[in-house]
Amino acid sequence: MGARTMANLARFPGRVFPVNAQYEEVAGHRCHPSLDALPEVPDVAIVALALDRVEDAVAACAARGVGAVVIYAAGYAEMGTEAGCAAQARLAAIGRDARMRIVGPNTAGLADLARGIVLAFPEFPEPPAGAARIGLVAQSGALGLALAQAAQRGVALTHVLTCGNSADVDVGDWLAALAESGDCGAVALTWEGASRERLLAAGRIARDRGVAVAACRLGLSAIGAEQALFHTGSVVIGEADFRALCAEAGFVPVTRIEALIETACFLAKAPRVARARGIGIASGSGGTAILAADAAARHGLDVPAPSPATVEALRTALPPFAAPRNPCDATAQVTANPQILRGVVDALLADPSIGALVCPWGKAYRSENIAYLDEAARRSGKPVCLVWMSQWLEGPGTAEAEAAPNLALFRSLDSCAAALAAWFVQEMPRDCADQ
Amino acid sequence: MGARTMANLARFPGRVFPVNAQYEEVAGHRCHPSLDALPEVPDVAIVALALDRVEDAVAACAARGVGAVVIYAAGYAEMGTEAGCAAQARLAAIGRDARMRIVGPNTAGLADLARGIVLAFPEFPEPPAGAARIGLVAQSGALGLALAQAAQRGVALTHVLTCGNSADVDVGDWLAALAESGDCGAVALTWEGASRERLLAAGRIARDRGVAVAACRLGLSAIGAEQALFHTGSVVIGEADFRALCAEAGFVPVTRIEALIETACFLAKAPRVARARGIGIASGSGGTAILAADAAARHGLDVPAPSPATVEALRTALPPFAAPRNPCDATAQVTANPQILRGVVDALLADPSIGALVCPWGKAYRSENIAYLDEAARRSGKPVCLVWMSQWLEGPGTAEAEAAPNLALFRSLDSCAAALAAWFVQEMPRDCADQ
Repeated sequence: MGARTMANLARFPGRVFPVNAQYEEVAGHRCHPSLDALPEVPDVAIVALALDRVEDAVAACAARGVGAVVIYAAGYAEMGTEAGCAAQARLAAIGRDARMRIVGPNTAGLADLARGIVLAFPEFPEPPAGAARIGLVAQSGALGLALAQAAQRGVALTHVLTCGNSADVDVGDWLAALAESGDCGAVALTWEGASRERLLAAGRIARDRGVAVAACRLGLSAIGAEQALFHTGSVVIGEADFRALCAEAGFVPVTRIEALIETACFLAKAPRVARARGIGIASGSGGTAILAADAAARHGLDVPAPSPATVEALRTALPPFAAPRNPCDATAQVTANPQILRGVVDALLADPSIGALVCPWGKAYRSENIAYLDEAARRSGKPVCLVWMSQWLEGPGTAEAEAAPNLALFRSLDSCAAALAAWFVQEMPRDCADQ
Repeated sequence: MGARTMANLARFPGRVFPVNAQYEEVAGHRCHPSLDALPEVPDVAIVALALDRVEDAVAACAARGVGAVVIYAAGYAEMGTEAGCAAQARLAAIGRDARMRIVGPNTAGLADLARGIVLAFPEFPEPPAGAARIGLVAQSGALGLALAQAAQRGVALTHVLTCGNSADVDVGDWLAALAESGDCGAVALTWEGASRERLLAAGRIARDRGVAVAACRLGLSAIGAEQALFHTGSVVIGEADFRALCAEAGFVPVTRIEALIETACFLAKAPRVARARGIGIASGSGGTAILAADAAARHGLDVPAPSPATVEALRTALPPFAAPRNPCDATAQVTANPQILRGVVDALLADPSIGALVCPWGKAYRSENIAYLDEAARRSGKPVCLVWMSQWLEGPGTAEAEAAPNLALFRSLDSCAAALAAWFVQEMPRDCADQ
């Protein structure tokens, strides 16, 4: 883990001091036999040691005046043993007494990917340059790494912050830090145990800064909670408590973990305020239009009948054998003639009762269609959601849609409908709601 | 559409006769001016004509004694107009009187991909050689094509059969044909309107032949049903009616369309009978183990405590700081030491109260792990579900898992849990249940 951490530090913009009495040099850096031998007091120490050597090292860091430590080792409260809990409490006490912050133990570390500051052992994928700047906060390092792989399909993650057992720093602290950083449009947040007060405080900061939060709480079932208790010594809350917490904190609740990143991307791209609470549905096939209507109904979304002016505009845009309705099946003719799609999209977005547009699509999108939808979303101030119905999950067009600054990409109509339902009802800070 | 159909017919193993008075030759075939000029009566005629010329052509096919016609043109019952419904009824009457079967109108056609018989205009992806032979029946051509793109990520589809407005042949007929073909281990079925009697009859054939069916009915909401009514003139049924129909027909109901192909693949790979109704959960991280337990609880799955013998076997397999429980978090050590995963998998699969194993995993699987899980599933006669938690949706390992004959791949814990819940309770034909 030490070697993998050093590899991650190759891009680190500050000074790096390996400490190990056995080596003269590590990864091109002069190696020091002890903390006391360092030429300066480090801001952060990464403790990549086996369990039995951790406590002494943490005490040495505290004595030297180190600002914070990151502790990888497992074998603490997540064991569910008295000894494990006591050892973790001792680490926390050392940190508290020295005013030294602790990340972990049992953590994968943290990464500010945009700045190349990776204080972690996993190899994170390089984030693409993209429009939706998403921060990821995950208590579980393995889960954080799994979600961070979204970079491989075009999601622009700014940070991956994990905290493991959260002896000190927890996901609420990380969320507050990201909200204050100004780096993220939205944060994807997942955890199994954290301070309620710190989560609520972080939620307030996020709302004040206009940073949206998509939240997925692990361990909502009895057996899941029991597992969570073993894993990180966390307290138990149920589904209803989770939803109440989200409502109070201003988080958008996400039940299925696979929807977390997509929901955060949607929130980062959507305007802060909904202009109306109905949705428009524009598709290139009857089947996908029906599915979109079904998903809308499952999530309580209104699919309003178009206004007379919208009907007129749809009639102008559509081929003669298509009906000017909402949902609007623009028929397979959209493939041959992109003007049809554009006319339908413009007509529905101009309708005063429509606050967001859902476009389920079965095949790879042409670049010009993606660009048009993105621009239509920007112009209208209404979110446009492209729902990828193709089972070629990373097929042509997906990375382009991901990179479009105003266009949200979902791979599930239900995930899209759930995100829209939460977005429509979210409470906005006064200065946003007044816009 | 004619030209694209001819391109699809390049691989057709039988004789192809283009009919068009304007050309001498089409796509290397001699072109005939009329049906009557053909040297023989064709089994099937594909009517790739504009709406106003369809009826005469269909009548000519009937007069010539053609066995069946495929009609692409739209503008019939899906318009929701009296004229459209009447025109469709006239086509149906022509077919009925001549004992000539009609596929469509408003259909994308049909494809037997394994044999290269593609009587359709869309370009279907080449199916990979794979273990789970899945037939796809979709009333909507666009949706069928979207789902068929699963071939791009390694799903071995045998057929894509669509029927559009179903003036004659409907999805029930297609399901019966696939069940009788012996080509498929399972069928993915999606529709908005079909004869209940034919669906039930097809369900009986499928059960008798041991072909499992994953079913997703479009138009279960009021607005979706209204859209379906417009689209194909279909009748309305609700969610409860759909579930009752599935129970009677022996279909596994699927709510979210994105789970349809994965569920069908699971059914094609799973043994016909569950040996026990509990599930085991083996993961490489605490976070994913908790999420799996939560999803199991949401779908009413039992996650039994391991037997004393299983606890002993787990203890032997696991590193000292991991607990011998179910769910079993084998810790990040599984990455370094594949023997740990193997020991845990074997221990859980040997437990008499465990009928299926769920392995949520956050990173690319090593080939040897995939091969081991596949072999463990075969040996135990219990399904092993690999749940891909990585947001790199088509990352390394996914196509390999898809191709493994006994290993089911899901990208959602909930889709996996829903499929297992349906699989545990499905009624088996007597000869299977007696095994």
